[in-house]
Amino acid sequence: MKIPVVENVLKLNDEIARQNRLAFEAAGVYVVDLIGAPGCGKTALLEATLQKLGGILEIGVIAGDPATSRDAERLAGYCDNIVQINTGNGCHLDANQVRQAMGRLDIASLDLLFIENVGNLICPVGFDLGQHSKVGMFSVCQGADKAAKHPYLPLVAAAILLNKIDLLAHVPFDLQQFRADLKRINAAAPLLEISVIQNQIAPWLNWLTHACTGRGEHRAPEYQPGVAES
Amino acid sequence: MKIPVVENVLKLNDEIARQNRLAFEAAGVYVVDLIGAPGCGKTALLEATLQKLGGILEIGVIAGDPATSRDAERLAGYCDNIVQINTGNGCHLDANQVRQAMGRLDIASLDLLFIENVGNLICPVGFDLGQHSKVGMFSVCQGADKAAKHPYLPLVAAAILLNKIDLLAHVPFDLQQFRADLKRINAAAPLLEISVIQNQIAPWLNWLTHACTGRGEHRAPEYQPGVAES
Repeated sequence: MKIPVVENVLKLNDEIARQNRLAFEAAGVYVVDLIGAPGCGKTALLEATLQKLGGILEIGVIAGDPATSRDAERLAGYCDNIVQINTGNGCHLDANQVRQAMGRLDIASLDLLFIENVGNLICPVGFDLGQHSKVGMFSVCQGADKAAKHPYLPLVAAAILLNKIDLLAHVPFDLQQFRADLKRINAAAPLLEISVIQNQIAPWLNWLTHACTGRGEHRAPEYQPGVAES
Repeated sequence: MKIPVVENVLKLNDEIARQNRLAFEAAGVYVVDLIGAPGCGKTALLEATLQKLGGILEIGVIAGDPATSRDAERLAGYCDNIVQINTGNGCHLDANQVRQAMGRLDIASLDLLFIENVGNLICPVGFDLGQHSKVGMFSVCQGADKAAKHPYLPLVAAAILLNKIDLLAHVPFDLQQFRADLKRINAAAPLLEISVIQNQIAPWLNWLTHACTGRGEHRAPEYQPGVAES
């Protein structure tokens, strides 16, 4: 008798996400939900992106972490519209937390809003926040089997980032296997191979500016446990 | 009115975990719940551990992943008692899944059982599986802020592993900061700095054989959201 409760929670979340999406549309802001495991480089990517695009676009950030305001502190040097959400033992952001954060941002002034989700490959996937696109992020340090082991993120992602390719010479990582797994799971999502630390993020900036200009909502396929397993 | 449901789930989990623990005690097997983010090196550590200790101790593994049986396939070369649990969109193992897996293992023959939890720094922390010790695993590729951002794992861990120290020359990682954060969060948990890929795992093997011989259950402090934040 617990499944109905979970369904209600998701239904409530989806309704708030719908309202968030309407507010984002009204404000003319494109919203990306960035999802990846702890340490794949999400905050560093946003630092680099703010440095590159901050003079061209008005950008805001909602940063989620279980504890500390370290991400917001790192990003505050590059943007004024930033809110840190501490989730405590919560493993993902939900639409209501995003709605609360929106109240502390001047979203009407923004062109682009990043939601940096809690570092977690699983739980954030199933929660609609009202974003236009969910973007999945991996790093070569994690090993090439992570897309296959965690297929739900690539399945719903509008694009997949593979970070830290500068370390390919120093870690065991089968790039062909990773590419093949992604193609099998979601052939439509482009794989953007980057090195944030070496400032090689052109594929990401190209994808982002194109997505932001198009302003289309990425329609992910239905979230189906059991699909895409090898 | 949703909190009582969550409490009931946890109460049921705790009761099954208690039964698991009694069964482990009766079988004379020491049980470690290994928790870390995707790609920190959990499976590689178990491979190396089975190679080193497999001739001395009878070792079993319960491996959790959202999808694929790749971990079990990797470990099957080193041990006979192995079960893979696919959690689908589940973000952690629970006591009932472990109980089901126990039915497929000859636990009476084992000295040591590893439960390799789903790659996730958050959700597995709050679920008792009946283990003697939870061990937390990080890697230098993830950045030095991860213990501070995810304090609940180090707070309950009997020991903390820091893997991939061979990469310290190639990635930005403030080792002093990481050590200081851990000391602040849980000064009692030893920090075991290792490189699985270079076979430098002596601190782990020493800790493990000592813990296994002592057979004491690690009594973690209460899980308290909000504590240990900087």
